[in-house]
This record gives sequence, C-alpha cells and structure tokens, in this order.
Amino acid sequence: MASARQVNIAIIGAGGVGKCFLSQLEWLAARRQNQKLVLTYIATSKKAVYSDSYSPIALDSVVSTLSSSSQAPLALPKLVDYLAASGTKTVLVDNTSSQDIADAYPSFLRRGISIVTPNKKAFSGSYKLWQDIFAAKEEGGALLYHEASCGAGLPVISTIKDLVETGDEVTKIEGVFSGTMSFLFNSFAPTSGAGGGKWSAEVAKAKELGYTEPDPRDDLNGLDVARKLTILARYAGLEVESPTSFPVQSLIPKELESVASGDEFLTRLPEFDAQMEEVKAEAQKEGKVVRFVGSIDVASKQVKVGLEKFDLSHPIAALKGSDNIISFYTKRYGSNPLIIQGAGAGGDVTAMGVTSDLLKVLAQL
Amino acid sequence: MASARQVNIAIIGAGGVGKCFLSQLEWLAARRQNQKLVLTYIATSKKAVYSDSYSPIALDSVVSTLSSSSQAPLALPKLVDYLAASGTKTVLVDNTSSQDIADAYPSFLRRGISIVTPNKKAFSGSYKLWQDIFAAKEEGGALLYHEASCGAGLPVISTIKDLVETGDEVTKIEGVFSGTMSFLFNSFAPTSGAGGGKWSAEVAKAKELGYTEPDPRDDLNGLDVARKLTILARYAGLEVESPTSFPVQSLIPKELESVASGDEFLTRLPEFDAQMEEVKAEAQKEGKVVRFVGSIDVASKQVKVGLEKFDLSHPIAALKGSDNIISFYTKRYGSNPLIIQGAGAGGDVTAMGVTSDLLKVLAQL
Repeated sequence: MASARQVNIAIIGAGGVGKCFLSQLEWLAARRQNQKLVLTYIATSKKAVYSDSYSPIALDSVVSTLSSSSQAPLALPKLVDYLAASGTKTVLVDNTSSQDIADAYPSFLRRGISIVTPNKKAFSGSYKLWQDIFAAKEEGGALLYHEASCGAGLPVISTIKDLVETGDEVTKIEGVFSGTMSFLFNSFAPTSGAGGGKWSAEVAKAKELGYTEPDPRDDLNGLDVARKLTILARYAGLEVESPTSFPVQSLIPKELESVASGDEFLTRLPEFDAQMEEVKAEAQKEGKVVRFVGSIDVASKQVKVGLEKFDLSHPIAALKGSDNIISFYTKRYGSNPLIIQGAGAGGDVTAMGVTSDLLKVLAQL
Repeated sequence: MASARQVNIAIIGAGGVGKCFLSQLEWLAARRQNQKLVLTYIATSKKAVYSDSYSPIALDSVVSTLSSSSQAPLALPKLVDYLAASGTKTVLVDNTSSQDIADAYPSFLRRGISIVTPNKKAFSGSYKLWQDIFAAKEEGGALLYHEASCGAGLPVISTIKDLVETGDEVTKIEGVFSGTMSFLFNSFAPTSGAGGGKWSAEVAKAKELGYTEPDPRDDLNGLDVARKLTILARYAGLEVESPTSFPVQSLIPKELESVASGDEFLTRLPEFDAQMEEVKAEAQKEGKVVRFVGSIDVASKQVKVGLEKFDLSHPIAALKGSDNIISFYTKRYGSNPLIIQGAGAGGDVTAMGVTSDLLKVLAQL
C-alpha cells in the first residue's frame, strides 16, 4: 500500500462546537487510513499555535497547548499566505461565527485552501459575498462544505444540494429552524393542552437551561432563522440579497429593543406577557398551536420568518424538545415532502456536521 | 481551464428506475463541467449496446437504440474485462435487483470499476458477500455507493455512514421501511378513526394502484424490509448473517404461501380478513394503530420486522401515503432521534438516489 498522503488542517475557533470538533478530529485522525491528518494551525480570537516549519500540533493535548500559548493569531491575509505556502493540501476549519473570517473565504479558496465550517455568515451575508465565494472556489479548485450552517448535524444542506444537482425542482421549504425557538414554543404552547407557563417565564427558563444566547434577544430577533432561510433559498435558486431583505418577525417588543442588557430585557419582559398570551389563545380557539417557523415559496419568491398556527397533528406542532424540522417540497416528491428532523443545535451534533464535511473533503483530496 | 476529463458510464437495467435514471443522466451530462460523461455500455437482461472501440452511446436516444439492438448482454466476467480494458475511469450503474450481478460486484471493484446502485441484494445477502465487496473495493481503489438501496432517494445510507464515520454510536433504528406496507396500513388502520376497509380489499386496492409487486406476496412476506434492516444493522456494527437470520413476520397466511399465483392469493385472501381485523381491533382497544415496522437494537443485537402498535401521536402512526420514516437513535442525539421521512419508493426518487451517488463518485474520480 502506498504511504499515507498528508493533509494539513488549520482550525479557527475552540469554543463549544470547536472543542467537540477537536475531540472528533482526534478520533478520526487515529483511524484514518491512507491519509495522515496534520494540524498545522489553531487559533482563537486571542491566541494561536503554529510554526514556520508546519510542525504537527499534537491533537491529544491541543486545548492545553493553545491555552498556554503566547503566540497571537495571524492576521487573515497572513494566514492565507502561511497555509498556501506549505505546499501540502490544506483544509481550513472555521468553527467561529465571525463575519471577518467569512469575508476572507474567497482569499483562502482562490489559493486552493478548502474550507469546512458551521459559520452561517459566509452564506447568508450579502449576495455578492455568496457569488465571490463560489467563484473563488472554482478558480482555486478548492472544496467547500457547510452542512452545520443549517440544522447542525442534520443532513439539510447536503439534501437540498442533492435535490437540485440531480435536477429536481424545490417548490417550497418550511420548518422550525431554531433549537431555541423550538424549545420555547414546545414549552409555551404544548400540544397536550396542559402546561405552558407565561412567555417571559419560558424565556427565562430557556436561558437558565442554556438554550438561548447570553442575551436572549439574539434568538428572539429571528435573525438566526433568517440566515438559515437565506442559505436554503439561495440553493433553491432564489437570489436573496441578504437575511434582512424579506419579512422577519421579531419577538422582541419594540420597547425592549434598546434596553441595555439581556438581564434588563428579561426583567421587563413580563410587561408584554399579555401580548403573547393573546397569540396563543387565538390559535387555541382554532384548535391550533403557535410556532415560530420559516418558509420559502420558490415560485412566488417569498421568504418569510415568523409566527404561524398549526393543527395539533401537524409534524411542526408535534416537535419535541429543541428539535428542528425541515420539510422539502419538490416536483419529484409531490404533495408529501421529504422531511428531516432532530436536534438542530448542540456542540456534539454541530461538530458532527463539520466532521462529516471534512470526511467529504478528505475523500476528494 | 483544463480540458474535460472523460468518465465512462456502464449501465445494467432499463426498467422503471433505470429509465428515470437515464433521463437524469442525460440532464446531468449536459450540465457537467470539467468532466465528459460517456456511456459505453448499456444492457437489460436480454439486449445490450456497446462497441469494442467504446464509442459513446447517445443519451438522448438510448432507450430506442437499446430496444432495437441485436446485441446480447456480455456475460459478467466478460463485462468486467470489457470495462477494465478501456483505460478510462469507469462507473457501473446497476439498476437491477439481480443477485447474480450483486455477486459479481467484487470482480468489478477489484479491477477499479466503481459502482452505484439501488440493488439491495449485494448488501443484504450473505455476510461473506458484504465482506468480499468491501475488501475488493479497498483492493481496487474503487468507489461504491448505494443510497437508493434503503428509502429510495431519502438520505438514509449517507446518514448512518456519517453518524458512524464521525464516531457517533447508533443505539437503535426504527421505522417504516416499505412504501407498500406504509400505504397498506395507513389505509387499513388510519389514525383518524374513519375509513379503513377490509384487509383483503386494501391489498387489492394497493395492487391496482401499482403500490405492490405483481404478486403482492413479494411485499407481504416482509423480506424487502428485512433486507433494508440487514443493511442498516451492518452499518451500525452488527454482523447480521442474512435477511433471514432474524425474526421476520410474514403477512402471508400459511395456507396461502404456496398457492400458484398472485391472483389466486388475492382471491382467497378474504378468508383471512378476520385475523387482521382482530389485530386492528386489539390496537384500537389500547387507543393505538397497528403498523408494519422494522427495528434494530444495537446493544442487544436484536433485529426484527413485523407488526407493532403505536400511539396515534407517534410519528410512525401519523405517516401519510406510501411514505417511509426512519428514526436513528444515537449517543449524540440522545432521546430525540434523527428522523428522515418521505417517499421511499417510486422511479424518480429512487433514480435520484442513484444520480446523487454518481455525483459523489464523479467528484472523487
């Protein structure tokens, strides 16, 4: 058997998802046949580990090596040069949600550096960035996968790509795209009638359990869902300009948009419980429950994000915990959609999306 | 840009799935950049088209070329030699359900010929064949994909492979794996209470609508589901010897197992309606419905196929039409499984599974 070809890995980000990815990478590298995976760069926003000789960074101790490092991260243009100069096939794993790094994707790709990432920003930013990224990918002969940018480890991006690339026509996509929103509404308006506290109490509970961002407004503004819809709509053929170029319902009361902190927001949120109670009661009157969903209608080019009412028997109403559900209506699948459901957030499952993307890249290098 | 690399395609089978695949291949070949797809062999069980000079067979007229051909198919060992001698990367697309062709996969793979197929037989036959196939694939450096062998175009095989290859542990798989069984039970025991004719009438109706094999016993014996379970169980790590090495409940009454024809079977089936009525009534007494499901419990190494009762709110009970549903319980996903749902049969969606596999192979050639 030929000796193992080397592939260099560079990683930015070592937070919740990043740490889970590192442990999956260690598992993978130990089992990889025919390819030797070598970590040559790792950085957080403050620290980095790398060397001019591209010495392998040991995976089993990388977290402590990184935390005790005194090296600063390379500026992005320098990082591009550093990785491209190695003379070895290289994959950049961007485990951040940084817009700056996303903006630099074209520079990496054009130099033949492949990218795998859960970062939504690159694919849901301006349409120009989207076009630049895919043009640079072609130009550089690089590979690019971002399964975990929508639905974490669920096969959402790969499914829409398979549908479109085999000639199917996506007509509609609908679903619950946020683990936080799923958890909130499954608790606030359960199908089983019983339970369901006041809205503000549910938000506080979700925050306490770690289901929301530090400031819950970052979930409640709907932007995270809008970003995922932007990505899917673009794959479905719509030239969506940005995640703010279509209607997105924010669940932040106007009066609380500019309060100073997430804590102050939570303290004042009970003043607005009556509004959400009314929304819930209105749905109940029709025998329905309210859910926070996103939808894309390809023919009418309509993308929207917000509250909608669903029959108790509807799969969206019947979701549990913080699960996502995404329904693809296509020409081939007809009236019964192709549905993907399951945890759409969490370190391990998000990292799994990144790792399975890495496997796809490795198979092609 | 470099000139397009050529990839040869050989196809066996031009039935329902095969014809849909041909039309998707024509669509794909016209759009493929950087690669020139050349059809160099196509055969049914009776006819074939090929030439010693590997002349391209025009995709837009291939069906009529094939039907008017006077060439006989090459015997499988000759076909291996023919394809391997071309000196060009070649993909064999097996759109049959032939055991003989499946048995020959190792010979193709060992010679570096990649395979994509919806044929279940290769992966659900003897465990020895399974081992031979994957050993030959390694030896020949060939690629092998068979998404459509379970759940047609639904991302079932790719999902279990992604889970396992990124280090997750599959603990349980459960679902409705047969479009025919799904249709039959969704009609026979609907969740909405109303409707649901006699069992024999539902079987006759399903046959009339084209949802069953010509002889419905080929669906009702449960073997098709057992084959799919065998494949998934093996990917989950169980060394399942064959699709008959675990309990499979047949819905063919003993007395009708050996009647001469599917028609005679249907004529006599009403004699046994009371039995199925009893099964249905027993479930109803518990507020449940009966469904034909398969399940794999990895820890206890238990694989089984047969009737089970489900709460009306269970996703398996709520299926519609002839949809499949497959739930993957894993260590990472915890108590809420990763669920894939949608049409699990039909020419176009099955062919889509084959075409998306071909795209994966093409990306690596």
